[in-house]
Amino acid sequence: MAADLRRELYEGLDALPIYDIHTHIDARNAFAGSLADIIGYHYYTELANSAEYRPDFAAEMDPDQIVRQVLERLPLFANTVQSDWLMVIGETFLGIKRSEWTSLAWQEVAAKAQKAIDAPGYRQEVLRRSGVQSIYMTNSCDEDLEGIDRRLFVPCLRVDPFVFAIDNPAERERLERASATVVRSPEDFALALRRVFNKFAAHGMAYAALSTVPNLVTRPVSDEEAAAALNQALTTGRLDEQARRAWAAYALNCIGDCCRATHKPFHLMIGVRRGAYPAGVAGGRDLMDSANSLVGYDYLFNEYWDVSFPVSVLADTSGLELAASSWIRHNVYVSGHWWYQNSPSDIARELRRRLDVVPANKLLGYYSDAYRVEFILPKFRMYKHELATVLAERVERSLTHPNMAPLDVDQALRLGKALLLDNPMRLFGAA
Amino acid sequence: MAADLRRELYEGLDALPIYDIHTHIDARNAFAGSLADIIGYHYYTELANSAEYRPDFAAEMDPDQIVRQVLERLPLFANTVQSDWLMVIGETFLGIKRSEWTSLAWQEVAAKAQKAIDAPGYRQEVLRRSGVQSIYMTNSCDEDLEGIDRRLFVPCLRVDPFVFAIDNPAERERLERASATVVRSPEDFALALRRVFNKFAAHGMAYAALSTVPNLVTRPVSDEEAAAALNQALTTGRLDEQARRAWAAYALNCIGDCCRATHKPFHLMIGVRRGAYPAGVAGGRDLMDSANSLVGYDYLFNEYWDVSFPVSVLADTSGLELAASSWIRHNVYVSGHWWYQNSPSDIARELRRRLDVVPANKLLGYYSDAYRVEFILPKFRMYKHELATVLAERVERSLTHPNMAPLDVDQALRLGKALLLDNPMRLFGAA
Amino acid sequence: MAADLRRELYEGLDALPIYDIHTHIDARNAFAGSLADIIGYHYYTELANSAEYRPDFAAEMDPDQIVRQVLERLPLFANTVQSDWLMVIGETFLGIKRSEWTSLAWQEVAAKAQKAIDAPGYRQEVLRRSGVQSIYMTNSCDEDLEGIDRRLFVPCLRVDPFVFAIDNPAERERLERASATVVRSPEDFALALRRVFNKFAAHGMAYAALSTVPNLVTRPVSDEEAAAALNQALTTGRLDEQARRAWAAYALNCIGDCCRATHKPFHLMIGVRRGAYPAGVAGGRDLMDSANSLVGYDYLFNEYWDVSFPVSVLADTSGLELAASSWIRHNVYVSGHWWYQNSPSDIARELRRRLDVVPANKLLGYYSDAYRVEFILPKFRMYKHELATVLAERVERSLTHPNMAPLDVDQALRLGKALLLDNPMRLFGAA
Repeated sequence: MAADLRRELYEGLDALPIYDIHTHIDARNAFAGSLADIIGYHYYTELANSAEYRPDFAAEMDPDQIVRQVLERLPLFANTVQSDWLMVIGETFLGIKRSEWTSLAWQEVAAKAQKAIDAPGYRQEVLRRSGVQSIYMTNSCDEDLEGIDRRLFVPCLRVDPFVFAIDNPAERERLERASATVVRSPEDFALALRRVFNKFAAHGMAYAALSTVPNLVTRPVSDEEAAAALNQALTTGRLDEQARRAWAAYALNCIGDCCRATHKPFHLMIGVRRGAYPAGVAGGRDLMDSANSLVGYDYLFNEYWDVSFPVSVLADTSGLELAASSWIRHNVYVSGHWWYQNSPSDIARELRRRLDVVPANKLLGYYSDAYRVEFILPKFRMYKHELATVLAERVERSLTHPNMAPLDVDQALRLGKALLLDNPMRLFGAA
Repeated sequence: MAADLRRELYEGLDALPIYDIHTHIDARNAFAGSLADIIGYHYYTELANSAEYRPDFAAEMDPDQIVRQVLERLPLFANTVQSDWLMVIGETFLGIKRSEWTSLAWQEVAAKAQKAIDAPGYRQEVLRRSGVQSIYMTNSCDEDLEGIDRRLFVPCLRVDPFVFAIDNPAERERLERASATVVRSPEDFALALRRVFNKFAAHGMAYAALSTVPNLVTRPVSDEEAAAALNQALTTGRLDEQARRAWAAYALNCIGDCCRATHKPFHLMIGVRRGAYPAGVAGGRDLMDSANSLVGYDYLFNEYWDVSFPVSVLADTSGLELAASSWIRHNVYVSGHWWYQNSPSDIARELRRRLDVVPANKLLGYYSDAYRVEFILPKFRMYKHELATVLAERVERSLTHPNMAPLDVDQALRLGKALLLDNPMRLFGAA
Repeated sequence: MAADLRRELYEGLDALPIYDIHTHIDARNAFAGSLADIIGYHYYTELANSAEYRPDFAAEMDPDQIVRQVLERLPLFANTVQSDWLMVIGETFLGIKRSEWTSLAWQEVAAKAQKAIDAPGYRQEVLRRSGVQSIYMTNSCDEDLEGIDRRLFVPCLRVDPFVFAIDNPAERERLERASATVVRSPEDFALALRRVFNKFAAHGMAYAALSTVPNLVTRPVSDEEAAAALNQALTTGRLDEQARRAWAAYALNCIGDCCRATHKPFHLMIGVRRGAYPAGVAGGRDLMDSANSLVGYDYLFNEYWDVSFPVSVLADTSGLELAASSWIRHNVYVSGHWWYQNSPSDIARELRRRLDVVPANKLLGYYSDAYRVEFILPKFRMYKHELATVLAERVERSLTHPNMAPLDVDQALRLGKALLLDNPMRLFGAA
């Protein structure tokens, strides 16, 4: 591929503002307060833990110790794209040169970062250099949404606990508190959900967000079956496998009802096995399952035909299945490149595939999944580099392909802009 | 890759006549009679339905309305390879320039197409410009095969109803009518099949064709078990899950017996979930399952060791499993790039893999799966472009690879010709 | 990609000595004694069998007949990488030019090979030209490890029979003989294993090696459950499905215990379906299953947190799941490119992925899986060509990627050397 063409396309994409449709950023604590807030990101602790295991490290709570121990092991995973994200954050925001991460003592690295972070205008500068325009959050039902800067931050309701943790008293309490509803029956639960959705809708929520277990099965669930499951959770404090599945299906339907009523999309992130590696660091214990079928979502997608479903998949093996779903299903939208698939070669493969067979208006390009604003820039850069590559291939292919008309750079950039800006803004009502 | 090399290889492949080993073309209605016959292809109605859902569209029967509604939404999926097929058909056969699909009113587009279609010699010109030499059909058991131009059209017997719809009275009636056999027992069924196969063999059938559900299991089935299943179908009008599976396995064995007796291959197209999206347009309701194992075919492949099985898979995840099967199993042939895998990046990936590990004489290159002759050209072009790309990579790799001898363009083209012509002609007895 | 860059990288990798961490080479019979020892490799017999089936060929025992029949069909699979391995062996070691494999009579080819093999210094020359430094073996528990050249050969204990063939009296006898232990109880079995491990450890074993069935499930197994399974095996000569699974899980735990006690890694090769194609040649009857989940290994990996698990997978669909496991799990190491994945495009895909997300010190590059020393060179060349390609891409990407610092050739070669030499030597204690 002509390097000039890719560069031109990258620069065009890089000039676009960033519209980040899924993050875990806390609007009240959006920026790093110290280097530990950067280094403590699970990607670094988990790579350090994996590269050189130290028995007590996963439980380490002292931020300094975490920084020290990760930096000691940084050379072991310097090959990774995650390491590159850190290098970018260092040189762009923290005044740390690439070589200094290993040449300086960890205290010096931390001090340099602190100096940058404490400088006046740091946050504005991070936003400005990143070109961030909008940050979607992942909010718990009982989170206080008042006083958040709505020009920058968009609430999204995380619904995982309703589906997978109804047997957890603390989670039930949060729901009850958030909805001012005592939950003793499926009807109570449905009412509580409606109240939470209405509260979130009043605060401009973009969508409901759920991460799911592999091979989840959605289906109709009678009130009786749901009541029996809920009763089991309330009386025994846990659910057997059958009740767990019944409740999950029931709760999904209730959430579908609420999305329908509030005209909000239901964002699914499909296929994570939580806690697969208990010895891992916080945030680094979950894996995927390559044998993950989307067949179990037929009922949900069909029944809630009037609800939009942006969908991400964790398994690479679900890539074509998702593309095919979005290709024929009017209400399934391909969304981003999630977690274990968020690396250049997997991104590029899916991009090629999606751009060849899914209507361009069904594609939601990318989200950072970040916990701090600083990570948005390097992650979007990584994506935009692959998008520029795939678009450059497309431009070049169009010049010789017997079926194609020549595609020019402006047309290619419009395609890129559709993925990055137009489609998410239209789908989430921000246009 | 050197663009000149790819172009030279493409031109060499493009000059080959087209031998299209699987289509749904009706020999008596092989060419479009109006633009609606082109636009009505499920790829366009499903992409339009997916890109912008309109509740009544899927049930729309008025050809004009279908044309209008698809053309209105054409810009939404202009990025797809399917859109490119349409552009090629327009400019090559219908006198419609690429820009005119959107710049003209739909009535004008349709009128232009009609003028081209009604012109004398249209059909001969489509065939000539496409270079089509042979078109394999997909025929129902009761179809009239008399009077078909056998120089161009080759019958193939579709056996899906025998395997998956024995509980459908209309399908049973077709079989009974076609075979002049009352089907009340497994023995009757086997006899009916034999008669149908003999009739088709007498008409020069190429093979029996079956599309299967994901994770199908083949196995020996006793006459008693088959009789019980058939009896259930006859008396209750439906089959429970166990009986459905037993009957499918039984029927597959009967078909294997008939293939053996008539010395015809059994073409399998593996892994489609029918009706997954009921709100879809006709032909656009089926999906794949990425968790699809080929383990269930062991019995069939082993037991019918003297029957050849050309095999296509719908799931990309089955690509290496199929290649490995054809690599070691003498009677499994890799066939084409089916449906959801029929896009450039998936084609290229499988081509690289197949050419590296499967004996070249086991590879059946491509089929169009088309419903009208007009689609053969753009689909084969798409494939040939990827084949030229992969062969060009191979030629270039051979010049520097430490294990390879230099491959020249003629050798590469011979390899391409083996896939496109030699192998299907030899396997299907047309050489 | 710049051809010069790839060539420079390839030459750098090619200059490294070969450290081959998994083979089936017999130290006492490591080199071919005739052409039949090369041609008899299952890759050639299975490709010949697949390309042109001859009913009696799979049972053919006469070496001359095997050579003759394979060479007759060589042109049918001349496209494969396996054919290229043979060409390299011919021209590098056997004095057979590429054209001669088909232009000469098979007896002449065999005679040329024999002349080369019988020449003085043949074995030293093969080793020297291959640059082989270390060859890991796959040894049965009762194999005599005395008198083996330990500078070149490293024993590894194959544990498959303990896990999957406890109901086979001949296999039990081998274990009993090797351990001087009568096996009548789970305790006996555990003791026998410990004795075998201790013997192997005394002979410098590198690791225990196991190939597994798809979707294996590891779990805790009580002594009672194990005793019941073993009793079934001893008394009935076979295991029902439930007992078979229980025993496999029990035996895996015992092997984990022994690896822990002897501080040896446990090398897993995951997902082979043995005997799927009974009509195949010896060594050519096994297939993969694309629907293969690694979820069943959670227990083993978690429980034996202090044992290192180099892991290979047979299914391409397990590629990202394995990379993700090694990315977060401290004790899982990605190992090589096994069997059906051992072809250029699958190797390159996994290499890109692994180098982007797994700490570089967790990656074990390649092993030949060879039965004769002659195959090591062409197989490693094939791998090194892909590694050079991927590293060249990385170098080029680093020059324009917005997140990367320029990577130079020396750095890229250090990364390659880590995979090929540093990591296996460190993990297997040979540094």
